[in-house]
Amino acid sequence: VVGVGDDAAVLPTPDGRVVASTDLLVEGRHFRRDWSAAPDVGVKAAAQNFADIAAMGARPRALLFGLAVPGELPAEWVLDVTRGLVAECERAGATILGGDVTGADTVMLALTALGNLDGLAPVTRGGAKPGDKVALSGRLGWSAAGLALLTAGAESVNSTAAGARPELAVLVAAHRRPQPEYRAGPMAAAAGATAMIDISDGLVQDLGHVAADSGVCIDLRSASLPVAPALRLAAGELGTDWLAWVLTGGEDHALAATFDQRAQLPETWVVIGKVRSGEGVLVDSVAWEAPGGWDHFRRQG
Amino acid sequence: VVGVGDDAAVLPTPDGRVVASTDLLVEGRHFRRDWSAAPDVGVKAAAQNFADIAAMGARPRALLFGLAVPGELPAEWVLDVTRGLVAECERAGATILGGDVTGADTVMLALTALGNLDGLAPVTRGGAKPGDKVALSGRLGWSAAGLALLTAGAESVNSTAAGARPELAVLVAAHRRPQPEYRAGPMAAAAGATAMIDISDGLVQDLGHVAADSGVCIDLRSASLPVAPALRLAAGELGTDWLAWVLTGGEDHALAATFDQRAQLPETWVVIGKVRSGEGVLVDSVAWEAPGGWDHFRRQG
Repeated sequence: VVGVGDDAAVLPTPDGRVVASTDLLVEGRHFRRDWSAAPDVGVKAAAQNFADIAAMGARPRALLFGLAVPGELPAEWVLDVTRGLVAECERAGATILGGDVTGADTVMLALTALGNLDGLAPVTRGGAKPGDKVALSGRLGWSAAGLALLTAGAESVNSTAAGARPELAVLVAAHRRPQPEYRAGPMAAAAGATAMIDISDGLVQDLGHVAADSGVCIDLRSASLPVAPALRLAAGELGTDWLAWVLTGGEDHALAATFDQRAQLPETWVVIGKVRSGEGVLVDSVAWEAPGGWDHFRRQG
Repeated sequence: VVGVGDDAAVLPTPDGRVVASTDLLVEGRHFRRDWSAAPDVGVKAAAQNFADIAAMGARPRALLFGLAVPGELPAEWVLDVTRGLVAECERAGATILGGDVTGADTVMLALTALGNLDGLAPVTRGGAKPGDKVALSGRLGWSAAGLALLTAGAESVNSTAAGARPELAVLVAAHRRPQPEYRAGPMAAAAGATAMIDISDGLVQDLGHVAADSGVCIDLRSASLPVAPALRLAAGELGTDWLAWVLTGGEDHALAATFDQRAQLPETWVVIGKVRSGEGVLVDSVAWEAPGGWDHFRRQG
């Protein structure tokens, strides 16, 4: 990497292509400073962006950031956000290429991630075909459950409802620091994934994009969806439905992909449904309604 | 370009490297909606970012944007900003790779530009050596003079002090839509530029980065600096010093570079000074003090 700190930075792209994705995160909409410590904000923002790279079948390589902060915010907070960015870059195998810090009334974090396909064909949302199997790598509903626990009981980054039930703390931690397995993306591409997407807004909603772009129907099998014991426990505590978290909770950044029915699934991937002709997303062959309606668990913004 | 509108986009990089730069622009600090129409905000933001690519000796290729806007802002304003981005992409020979629009209390625009070196070595700020000539391609002080005219008299995007003096309107237009000659960057790189920088904060300040990174002194010759007749006219109108605009006005995104004394300067480049051993930036071999001090013309943020 040449030129970091110069007008621009230079990144080698031995593959002859670069994969790029950008995200803008706004305080109060995408994160809360009283619910997430500064390093967690950085980790989560980087994870969200790198997951988009992985969902194309690419390997995260670099990150550029812009950070807008009010003048009254302690410099340490800014440093801690960048420490979070650096930490997630290290976990992802990427480097920080450049940054721009400016003043503003609202805290805002703008990230651009760059990745490398290592010779693989990019996997879009548009290649699923009837007969394909639908598979998942990663967690579902953990972040949504963690957010529900925070909403129910927490007032600060240091006191959480989960404090009283340590077995629930993993969910709050997952909300604060999603830890996607980025290599699941390139592994799926190498195994011939026909379509792939990052689950950032919820399984049903995001697979809806695959169904629409591919012109197919995706039929999920609820019994095959991974449900962590902590999820059932949290749902019991809060008197809510864990299936809603699993089907509509975003921000865990699991990857969902479709594969030809004869394809060998790579490590970490499990079958959760089937592609049919038709349109939309079904659960156990019927339309699924979240309690409180579709918008119940969608994030704002 | 594959995958635009997908999780991420794929850009060919035949050179085996990609040049990347990111910028964050905040309403009230980097632009004013009452002084610049939405398309101008988009044009100016893209120009600023592409100029950073050109300053490495690279050719702009792609742009990713994040746009944060309050809910009460008309959708047309958002569309017009993106129209400005598209217009400047077309002028620069680049394409929009992706975008992310979100809500926020403050209007903010986050851009990442990508470029291609076409086999040339990147030109950093650190390669100037004593004996090199210092050269410039582009305008100096136009944007600062345009801003001064707006500050003195304008209250809206439609009424300007320059309205009364059409020969000054070019300066206000330059403030709203800087139109850098991006190809001057790759041409300088091909001609062997030893160091190069985008003049975004003012000639003296930005050449100060070259002097510091290269460990040299840069001595400007004031008689060689380009001074447009409109600048002298505007300075007379406002009773101010045009030399201050030329030396400290930013945002025209001229390029400054150093070349070996025997190098042939490419088209559009003119000699404006010399590199000596020492440190800092001099004007006619002496330190230069702006009227009102160094911070007088610096932009905020």
